[in-house]
Amino acid sequence: MGQTAALVEYILGSRLEAIPAEVRHEGKRALVNIVGCALGGADHPAMGMAIAALGPYAGQPTSAVIGRRERFDPLFASLLNGLSSHVHDYDDTLPKNYIHASSPVASALLAYASVNKLSGPDFLHAFILGFEVISRIGNATYPAHYDAGWHSTGSIGVFGAAVAIGKLLDLDAERMTYAIGLAATQGAGIREMFGSMGKGFHPGSSAQRGYVAALLAEKGFTSGRFPLESPRGFAAVTSAKYDLDKLTVDLGRRFELSDNTYKPFPCGIVVHPTIDACIQLREKHGFAADDVEAVELRVAPLVKDLCNKKEISTGLEGKFSIYHAAAIGLGRGRGGHAEFTDEAVNNPALKRIRLLAEANGDPSVSEDGVIVKVRLKDGREVGMHLTESLGNLKRPLSDAQLEAKFRDQSGVVTPAQADAAIAACWTIDELDDAARLIAPCIPA
Amino acid sequence: MGQTAALVEYILGSRLEAIPAEVRHEGKRALVNIVGCALGGADHPAMGMAIAALGPYAGQPTSAVIGRRERFDPLFASLLNGLSSHVHDYDDTLPKNYIHASSPVASALLAYASVNKLSGPDFLHAFILGFEVISRIGNATYPAHYDAGWHSTGSIGVFGAAVAIGKLLDLDAERMTYAIGLAATQGAGIREMFGSMGKGFHPGSSAQRGYVAALLAEKGFTSGRFPLESPRGFAAVTSAKYDLDKLTVDLGRRFELSDNTYKPFPCGIVVHPTIDACIQLREKHGFAADDVEAVELRVAPLVKDLCNKKEISTGLEGKFSIYHAAAIGLGRGRGGHAEFTDEAVNNPALKRIRLLAEANGDPSVSEDGVIVKVRLKDGREVGMHLTESLGNLKRPLSDAQLEAKFRDQSGVVTPAQADAAIAACWTIDELDDAARLIAPCIPA
Repeated sequence: MGQTAALVEYILGSRLEAIPAEVRHEGKRALVNIVGCALGGADHPAMGMAIAALGPYAGQPTSAVIGRRERFDPLFASLLNGLSSHVHDYDDTLPKNYIHASSPVASALLAYASVNKLSGPDFLHAFILGFEVISRIGNATYPAHYDAGWHSTGSIGVFGAAVAIGKLLDLDAERMTYAIGLAATQGAGIREMFGSMGKGFHPGSSAQRGYVAALLAEKGFTSGRFPLESPRGFAAVTSAKYDLDKLTVDLGRRFELSDNTYKPFPCGIVVHPTIDACIQLREKHGFAADDVEAVELRVAPLVKDLCNKKEISTGLEGKFSIYHAAAIGLGRGRGGHAEFTDEAVNNPALKRIRLLAEANGDPSVSEDGVIVKVRLKDGREVGMHLTESLGNLKRPLSDAQLEAKFRDQSGVVTPAQADAAIAACWTIDELDDAARLIAPCIPA
Repeated sequence: MGQTAALVEYILGSRLEAIPAEVRHEGKRALVNIVGCALGGADHPAMGMAIAALGPYAGQPTSAVIGRRERFDPLFASLLNGLSSHVHDYDDTLPKNYIHASSPVASALLAYASVNKLSGPDFLHAFILGFEVISRIGNATYPAHYDAGWHSTGSIGVFGAAVAIGKLLDLDAERMTYAIGLAATQGAGIREMFGSMGKGFHPGSSAQRGYVAALLAEKGFTSGRFPLESPRGFAAVTSAKYDLDKLTVDLGRRFELSDNTYKPFPCGIVVHPTIDACIQLREKHGFAADDVEAVELRVAPLVKDLCNKKEISTGLEGKFSIYHAAAIGLGRGRGGHAEFTDEAVNNPALKRIRLLAEANGDPSVSEDGVIVKVRLKDGREVGMHLTESLGNLKRPLSDAQLEAKFRDQSGVVTPAQADAAIAACWTIDELDDAARLIAPCIPA
């Protein structure tokens, strides 16, 4: 049996009850995270542009869009959910292959659930399966696929949406194969888009195209039968090296969701240790922004190369400035969306710290760590050597921290709505109607 | 200046009057061919499936679809036009890179022209530019891109639709760059789909996605600025070797349309020489199907490898049988759609010739040639050595042959409509409204 057929057999036979409780819980954590991110990006300018450009061509307005008042057809809604949930680079990450797997899957599912009646358990089950398929194709083709320049959240994300929607459509083995094939032949997204709206477009487009693949397959639209493993299949075409065994080893026993990570701060991951350490120093030693007199950061050389920006004026630039990272950690003790606005970057108190901070590359410091030394005006010298940054696999965000992250991003709805949406994520496997997760995510 | 910028500068500055008359005429020939192919595929089962699957999600029914009575939004109509015009593998081919460049460009343009007022000259101009951009990206990345397993009609076709629609939207340089960038990050389509409906899906999806790219760009949705040439741009990501100079050398002086070819028969191109030679023998020597007593074909070894099918029962199989090719050429003196039906394959007179024919691989015969020997029941032995098959660059289809091909495929409309559509293609550069090409392509 080929790898595609083995995956299809697993998908068709999978039952939610057979998935370990901790994996199901991790699925809920991923939902809390991604729905919060979709709310946080719902009013991003890219969303307005996409709606202005493509809204006039959308179908019947049957589907809600997370964080928006407009309704569109579910295919366009999938695209918008994916764009909003990734546009701030704040969604989840699989450390093994750098894929942000939740967005393409959840974005399609949220649109599907908005126009079709399905239970919460079925929603969670389809999400876990779609996530798993993305993760495994990512593992099988990493690092060659990513190194070639693919943004695998786009190029591989499409499979997750196809499988998740295909599972809900109850496709038989032949048609699930076509869904995977039609996903394989739509996989796209290149890293040249990084730093532009095109990056956020990737999981949105993948969600939409995976949904399309499943719908076509349902009607019998055919594809090749070995879309992952054949000599002209997805792995061989897009990846100079690949290991097809990773598609199926321990399938149904080990779940990649268990390795998922969630960003605590909406910015480049390499400045996370600095923010984290600076917040810890401030909390431990109890000082204010104006108390800071000198800051020395020692970071991995790569981090300095990537984020050595001091003369900046926009929130977007702030996301990739190691100096701004120190400023918000020391000056505000937090790093939420409010710390990556143009206002925050131009705030005099934060700007003062940014300009006085120094950063040096140090090969002894890992990319996941930082050494911070701070001299305060009262003469105190404080510091720490952080070796594991908040949000990585060894220091995962707690459920409470994920909730706080959700609330920090949920300004487009009321606090009561945010609470209801969070509660719906945690109880998704008890809901008779998955749409109960969507209703509180729509602004009044 | 980067290659993307140079292409953009050329596209923005191009004027139809500056394009040589013979290139403009070749553009019209390509339109006659592709519109005929779209009519020929309009009632293919894949079209019904795509409409059943995605029609319920389509937008306002403003756009016509070639050869169909339904109307859909122009993005979905683009997809359907692309599917119909490629699904029979009967559209045009660029011998330099094997791309079928007309379908993705014309499919988007026909939908655009159905919902926007534009002149025939603007339609033809946009078509020529879109075709040129596809061809050049194809040349720059061939053969590595194709050899990797990309179906470049899909993966590269998307650029043509983006540029053609972008030209009509009068995008400025920045936005045309985004259109190309958003095309680059949507390019997809793998050769594993060959032999399935997924292959025909490629130019349709490319037409739709290129159209989407142009619409997004018009609203300012950003992409990377060096989508073709950067280290993480389209060429580097998808092609192990590439030559970016081919993107711009002699731009505006040499046009790739001049190298376009048109299939005389709706089947695998490697059996074309056999059909061609057998038709010529029948015409020259005046025999009937029942007169044939023995047939020997000598073909390139690759041709025998690919098309050595004698025990067949479907029209689709007939498209890749060297024996069926001889049977229809000798038995009917033609190779139109009617010769690749299940009926034709099971026709006793044709089947008799197929079963008695022999084929041998001969390294001295080129893939574009054949040696045919036929013994007739009256004792005559006739034969020929064909070295250039009809439809290749040295023996292009005449305008009259293209018209005959169009009529052979236009059964979904009346003969009078077919005549009107053909006339509109030949006079496209005189029409005040390009939609006059579309109206006669819609069944009553």
